[in-house]
Amino acid sequence: MDSFQTVLRFFTNQKATIGYSFMALMTIGGERLFSLVSFQCPCNQDQNFAYGMTFLLGPAAVLMILGLFFNNRLWRLYTGCCLNPVKLCPHGNCFGCARVLLSIFTGACVAPIMWLSVALLSGTFYECAVSGLEDKVVVDLFCKNKTLKCRDELARVPCGRSQLPGDESKDLLLMLRAQSQILGWCLIIISAFVGLLGTCYKNCRSKVSYLQLTFWKRYMEKEMERFDILSVEYATKLADRNLQSFFDNKDPAPFPFPNHKAWEEIS
Amino acid sequence: MDSFQTVLRFFTNQKATIGYSFMALMTIGGERLFSLVSFQCPCNQDQNFAYGMTFLLGPAAVLMILGLFFNNRLWRLYTGCCLNPVKLCPHGNCFGCARVLLSIFTGACVAPIMWLSVALLSGTFYECAVSGLEDKVVVDLFCKNKTLKCRDELARVPCGRSQLPGDESKDLLLMLRAQSQILGWCLIIISAFVGLLGTCYKNCRSKVSYLQLTFWKRYMEKEMERFDILSVEYATKLADRNLQSFFDNKDPAPFPFPNHKAWEEIS
Amino acid sequence: MDSFQTVLRFFTNQKATIGYSFMALMTIGGERLFSLVSFQCPCNQDQNFAYGMTFLLGPAAVLMILGLFFNNRLWRLYTGCCLNPVKLCPHGNCFGCARVLLSIFTGACVAPIMWLSVALLSGTFYECAVSGLEDKVVVDLFCKNKTLKCRDELARVPCGRSQLPGDESKDLLLMLRAQSQILGWCLIIISAFVGLLGTCYKNCRSKVSYLQLTFWKRYMEKEMERFDILSVEYATKLADRNLQSFFDNKDPAPFPFPNHKAWEEIS
Repeated sequence: MDSFQTVLRFFTNQKATIGYSFMALMTIGGERLFSLVSFQCPCNQDQNFAYGMTFLLGPAAVLMILGLFFNNRLWRLYTGCCLNPVKLCPHGNCFGCARVLLSIFTGACVAPIMWLSVALLSGTFYECAVSGLEDKVVVDLFCKNKTLKCRDELARVPCGRSQLPGDESKDLLLMLRAQSQILGWCLIIISAFVGLLGTCYKNCRSKVSYLQLTFWKRYMEKEMERFDILSVEYATKLADRNLQSFFDNKDPAPFPFPNHKAWEEIS
Repeated sequence: MDSFQTVLRFFTNQKATIGYSFMALMTIGGERLFSLVSFQCPCNQDQNFAYGMTFLLGPAAVLMILGLFFNNRLWRLYTGCCLNPVKLCPHGNCFGCARVLLSIFTGACVAPIMWLSVALLSGTFYECAVSGLEDKVVVDLFCKNKTLKCRDELARVPCGRSQLPGDESKDLLLMLRAQSQILGWCLIIISAFVGLLGTCYKNCRSKVSYLQLTFWKRYMEKEMERFDILSVEYATKLADRNLQSFFDNKDPAPFPFPNHKAWEEIS
Repeated sequence: MDSFQTVLRFFTNQKATIGYSFMALMTIGGERLFSLVSFQCPCNQDQNFAYGMTFLLGPAAVLMILGLFFNNRLWRLYTGCCLNPVKLCPHGNCFGCARVLLSIFTGACVAPIMWLSVALLSGTFYECAVSGLEDKVVVDLFCKNKTLKCRDELARVPCGRSQLPGDESKDLLLMLRAQSQILGWCLIIISAFVGLLGTCYKNCRSKVSYLQLTFWKRYMEKEMERFDILSVEYATKLADRNLQSFFDNKDPAPFPFPNHKAWEEIS
């Protein structure tokens, strides 16, 4: 029983790590699924770019929106701030609010960046998108040292249906994939670096010590948990009382309940 | 026991997410089933468009109607409002009612949009529908850079029975599918964005804080649940009393029961 | 134990949904069975139409009659109204009775419409029926752009025994199936829409609020249930008493029993 508790505590501590690993696995699986089942490059100069970009950026946008949607902190801060804009800047301190919004936004960026990295490392979407570019500079760059046909047939390369000699077509494909993967690694390194810098800055400016911070984080979690449990309990009691009094046709008994202001304060 | 409670609470909290995931899986399964078992493009210029559109929009319409049908809030608001139109505008406040209707309608739109997205991402229905268009501009756009036969044979492309050279036919198919998938992603992104904006707006105008909102949501759920249980209890008691008095040929005992007005008020 | 209760309550609430899903599955299974085992298009111009229509409409008619047959409300209303026609129009209010009959009829229509939709979506029966039409306009429409033989051979198409070139025959089959499926979807959408409108109208004219309605629905169910139990109980007691008094050759003891009028009233 004791060792089970230890294991449980370990997993609770590593919740964030496990969550991110799970997310990464889901992203990789989703990317595999999309590029095998749904993605089929149209291989025509007009559509390639739009199509590839849709598959590269579409899921990222959806993930970003979902990330904002399921963020409790955003809603807690935001709710009711149209009727009471002062809430956003308590004590004239709009800067703090902006910092919270920035941190929320950063949190929502994790999933899209993961998707982009995975998609770029696999390279399928990028190949299709870039092969449809009509910009002269780019095409010249790609077709350097190649036969003249290359310009016309570039869009058909990702399908393997171009009329270029096999070697050239393979060269082009390898080049595009290499670009995509280099981009992907750059994205990963840059975002990891930015994340590290951000955490450094945040912790550096914090007024309390590290151990105190971890304590408060624990406290927040526990408070959230207890709030859930207690609110369900109170809601059940309140509902019971009201319905009883309704069916029995009697006045409801008084019920101790926090007033509006108290709710505002704890939010 | 405690950990079981935690797991249960987690699932209860994520009820909406699980419900939507289940719905998405059902939609994908349904789409697969339809396009494999039932859908067979007629490949003739007169019918393609009507047929494809029927499969694209028909299920969406049915899902929309079902969504409205199973919405308790709609019926609660709506019931009896012919005899008492004032009910829709309590205190001359028709705007609030319109907002509730709008939110009900939005809720009913989720399933149809899901269906449309899945169907467009798979592309089968769209290919068939669009290949039957007779509009000159569209046909010209599709048959750009193709042989003259393309115009006549376009409708037969989705069946793979056209007399075009294999390459051209494949190009056309890939192009149609690409259009369909781009449309699908646009639909997904736009509706996710609109959903986020709508939630922002709604929460922004809310008079109570976020935690109070979650508490009231819990309360509503619990009240509904307790109402179910209590109404079954009272109904059993009442039925028992009435039938007893009927068989025993006696007058029924008095029974405390809320009057008509009280019912009106809690609705 | 508690969670088991919750699951049970959930299923009780969703009784109607589960019932309809089951009915839909049965209909689909029945249609599959009929078209595989029993249905074999005669493929001759005189019989095709009658044969196809029999399979399309016959089961629908049977389902309709069965639906009326197993409807308790119909019999409760109808029983004894030849001897006492006033019962149909209590207080000169024939309109209410007509409304009840209409609602009974609507309920009985659900299964036939389900059958028709499934049969039309599968298309086998419709193909056979329509290929036997001798109306000149219809045949001209079907044989547009086809060889002259088409008119004579149309009836043999559903069997795959026509002497038309393979392509034309396949075109015809696909066209007929597409018509059938479009008709099927139209039927589904129209009946769903009519159902929604009807429910709206009914609820709109209801004198009581929605929650009261749900309570009375529960009450009706419970009353029916208790009536079953209690009537068995009382019938046992009464039979016991009568037989006892018969064997003992004594007058039966008096038994409190509702008179004829009371029975009439509760029906």
